[in-house]
Amino acid sequence: MAKIKKVLIANRGEIALRIIRACKELEIGSVAIFSEVDVEGIWVRKADECYPIMGDLIQAYLDYDRIISIAKKSDCDAIHPGYGFLSENADFAKACEDNGLIFIGPKPEHIELFGDKMASKVAMKKVGVPVLEGTDEPVKDIQEGEKIAREIGFPVIIKAAFGGGGRGMRIVKLEKDFKDMYESATNESMKYFGRDEVFIEKYVENPRHIEIQIIADKYGNVLHLGERDCSIQRRHQKVIEIAPSPRLNNETRKELYRIATKAMFKLGYESVGTVEFLVDEQDNIYFIEMNTRVQVEHPVTETITGVDIIQRMIEIAEGDKLQFLQEEVHFRGYAIEFRINAENPQKNFMPGTGTVIKYLTPGGPGVRIDTSIYTGYKVPSNYDSMIGKLIVWALDWEGAVKKAKRALDEFYIEGFPTNIPLHREIVRDEDFINGTFNTSYLDKKMEIFTLHSEDNIKKEEDKIANIMKLMETINKNNLKVKH
Amino acid sequence: MAKIKKVLIANRGEIALRIIRACKELEIGSVAIFSEVDVEGIWVRKADECYPIMGDLIQAYLDYDRIISIAKKSDCDAIHPGYGFLSENADFAKACEDNGLIFIGPKPEHIELFGDKMASKVAMKKVGVPVLEGTDEPVKDIQEGEKIAREIGFPVIIKAAFGGGGRGMRIVKLEKDFKDMYESATNESMKYFGRDEVFIEKYVENPRHIEIQIIADKYGNVLHLGERDCSIQRRHQKVIEIAPSPRLNNETRKELYRIATKAMFKLGYESVGTVEFLVDEQDNIYFIEMNTRVQVEHPVTETITGVDIIQRMIEIAEGDKLQFLQEEVHFRGYAIEFRINAENPQKNFMPGTGTVIKYLTPGGPGVRIDTSIYTGYKVPSNYDSMIGKLIVWALDWEGAVKKAKRALDEFYIEGFPTNIPLHREIVRDEDFINGTFNTSYLDKKMEIFTLHSEDNIKKEEDKIANIMKLMETINKNNLKVKH
Repeated sequence: MAKIKKVLIANRGEIALRIIRACKELEIGSVAIFSEVDVEGIWVRKADECYPIMGDLIQAYLDYDRIISIAKKSDCDAIHPGYGFLSENADFAKACEDNGLIFIGPKPEHIELFGDKMASKVAMKKVGVPVLEGTDEPVKDIQEGEKIAREIGFPVIIKAAFGGGGRGMRIVKLEKDFKDMYESATNESMKYFGRDEVFIEKYVENPRHIEIQIIADKYGNVLHLGERDCSIQRRHQKVIEIAPSPRLNNETRKELYRIATKAMFKLGYESVGTVEFLVDEQDNIYFIEMNTRVQVEHPVTETITGVDIIQRMIEIAEGDKLQFLQEEVHFRGYAIEFRINAENPQKNFMPGTGTVIKYLTPGGPGVRIDTSIYTGYKVPSNYDSMIGKLIVWALDWEGAVKKAKRALDEFYIEGFPTNIPLHREIVRDEDFINGTFNTSYLDKKMEIFTLHSEDNIKKEEDKIANIMKLMETINKNNLKVKH
Repeated sequence: MAKIKKVLIANRGEIALRIIRACKELEIGSVAIFSEVDVEGIWVRKADECYPIMGDLIQAYLDYDRIISIAKKSDCDAIHPGYGFLSENADFAKACEDNGLIFIGPKPEHIELFGDKMASKVAMKKVGVPVLEGTDEPVKDIQEGEKIAREIGFPVIIKAAFGGGGRGMRIVKLEKDFKDMYESATNESMKYFGRDEVFIEKYVENPRHIEIQIIADKYGNVLHLGERDCSIQRRHQKVIEIAPSPRLNNETRKELYRIATKAMFKLGYESVGTVEFLVDEQDNIYFIEMNTRVQVEHPVTETITGVDIIQRMIEIAEGDKLQFLQEEVHFRGYAIEFRINAENPQKNFMPGTGTVIKYLTPGGPGVRIDTSIYTGYKVPSNYDSMIGKLIVWALDWEGAVKKAKRALDEFYIEGFPTNIPLHREIVRDEDFINGTFNTSYLDKKMEIFTLHSEDNIKKEEDKIANIMKLMETINKNNLKVKH
């Protein structure tokens, strides 16, 4: 296959910049696209070329006919979709191929397969992966519900299809209780949401979210780059990601590696991807879904393995063989990623926008920052609230947590609220420090956290002002400072 | 020994901040000192406490009676000297001890020994280290000169004691030429500098500067953390430092490790330190000096080993045993450090000062920044011109050079000239890329480099202005962009 010479990045924000950086380091040209409000985006400046897409602000990054047309007119030979937007759109991947463009990602059939949750569970079961059993569509009636529950095996969870906040949700531990629970779940759902459809799913208590990073070339070399623990979530949105998982049993870890790589090998998967599992307190493993793209949290894996995932993803797409073996992937230390969101954790995480007035980033050893903001940048309100990521690293877990504390304390963004105060509380919380957390951690802790957004910089500036006043007095009176 | 609870940092700038960060990660208190012009220094803000030292601006960081007095009054139990200033002052280290303060560094007798170049060569020779032979003081006359030259062995170099720029300097390859060369060197020196004193030293042709990072506890555990190649120098000032050395023969590397650790063990060295060597084209090794402190370039070693040198240095000082063995030190990839100086390489490196108006730092994978500047900070003219360090890392040398290119291109400091344009040329130079450089590299290349300080940001801003104009036209005429 021919070497890629120029890549169009069909995305925005920090991931667009991340991909441009990879292109520059591979000495590949880069083409950015941007919506009308994104003209000041850092990725627009840093790409070799850039093209506006006028009109609807979201559609700009989804309109694949226009994106492909720009790619062709600007002589690109490949498109990188990043995450979100078109990254898991099989039609787009196919349209790239049809237009003679390399889609930097997996084959369209894999995107399609794993885009269908039910079908992907069936496929993964076939290749020996234990899956989280459940219905894809609401069950018809109580009889069908009971039959399915029996097939899945108790405990199961009944979930209102249109519910939320625990309403219309029942955990059924014993078969004999099923009917009562079903009725009370559907009644409650009807009462609160006006609809009574429910799903049934295997109930996993206090699971951790553990995912395996897969990297696979076109020649059947399927490797893993270790796991990430993404249990710290708020309403199913990841907030903090960790590699490796600080409390995962080593046997379970190896089993996850084995299962995930074997499955991806058998399914002929190519490119990078992530196999997501729930792991319960007894170390039972349940496959939940496969992400056929690079993930927001890929930096923690890059940090502990030293492998540049985006660069290798591009090389795989151009037909390169993986240049390393599984046994050459060495894991070093612990990395933690904090998603920095423009949102107010004190006001129910209301997204905030505004202009970056003052901006101080942490630095020094073991600190990586991936962000699209800079002093003077106005964050548009039209997109996801994530404006950057802080990644810290140390040789051991304890050191990584302390590094996180130090780095988060140094981080300062003035102009709009961010979730940095939330992160500062988490890294001071005993359960986080001890690694004893699961997917319900954050929703529970939110009730305890005080989230006083301590203004470090204000304190520092007061300190400096006091010193300057003192020094003036000394100078005026020609005094000597005594110690 | 008791745990250290609070450290006074007897330094300024990026190294003061670096030490404060280490203290924070170890959960140790930190006390900063600062001169009158340094009140806005970032380390003053970040330390838990800070104290001004009025009066002379240089003396502020050298006046050890006052520094010790501040340390005692602020309840510190230790002092970290950083590099420069008091870091290699044996009297200061002793004064700390006498005042019940832990000096974070080696024992005073080692500071004293290695502070004396001649004595340190004698001591190192005794413990089996091949040293660069030469006179410490000017030779008395031609007879003594010839005798010494014969003892050292040819080729030797005759150097004017008060010379510079190659004047009064002669390389003598054969004994029979010595007398003539000596006379012409002394005559030339007299002519240009009005003095005719000369030194005689072994002549090493095109050497590389290779130094070994030593870390040793109080219990005889002496380890190395690999080597650094600091051959890229301008007038004996290091400009770029690399770990590991990209072209060092592996046998020579191991020999250097062996020699350096053995010598430090035999001499009972404690704390961190660096044994500096010249390595010639035939891989002959010559010890030149030992630095009994943490060095500017320690981050490249931290980056490839994962060992936090400053943290371990503090722990060693409080009496901790090293928690790892030599075989547990693993080296990964290549790290390059670029010293960022406020100086104008186009105007003979004239130091520049001013206020940071606009400041954009590189980020993403494999980038570390240690700096004391921030937007709005006024760089004082009274101290060393180094305002920060950019450290890049990749799994292989080629990748590290490409990363350096990308990161240097992203780096933008507006307000005063810096040496970033020089670094940009170096990383594009074939000899640098191929790793074929020695200590004369930069002085030679300076004649070729054009140092056009390409203003990346200006270009980017012009690009954005053009796009905005285009978009205005489109909106005014209600046109659609065609692709």
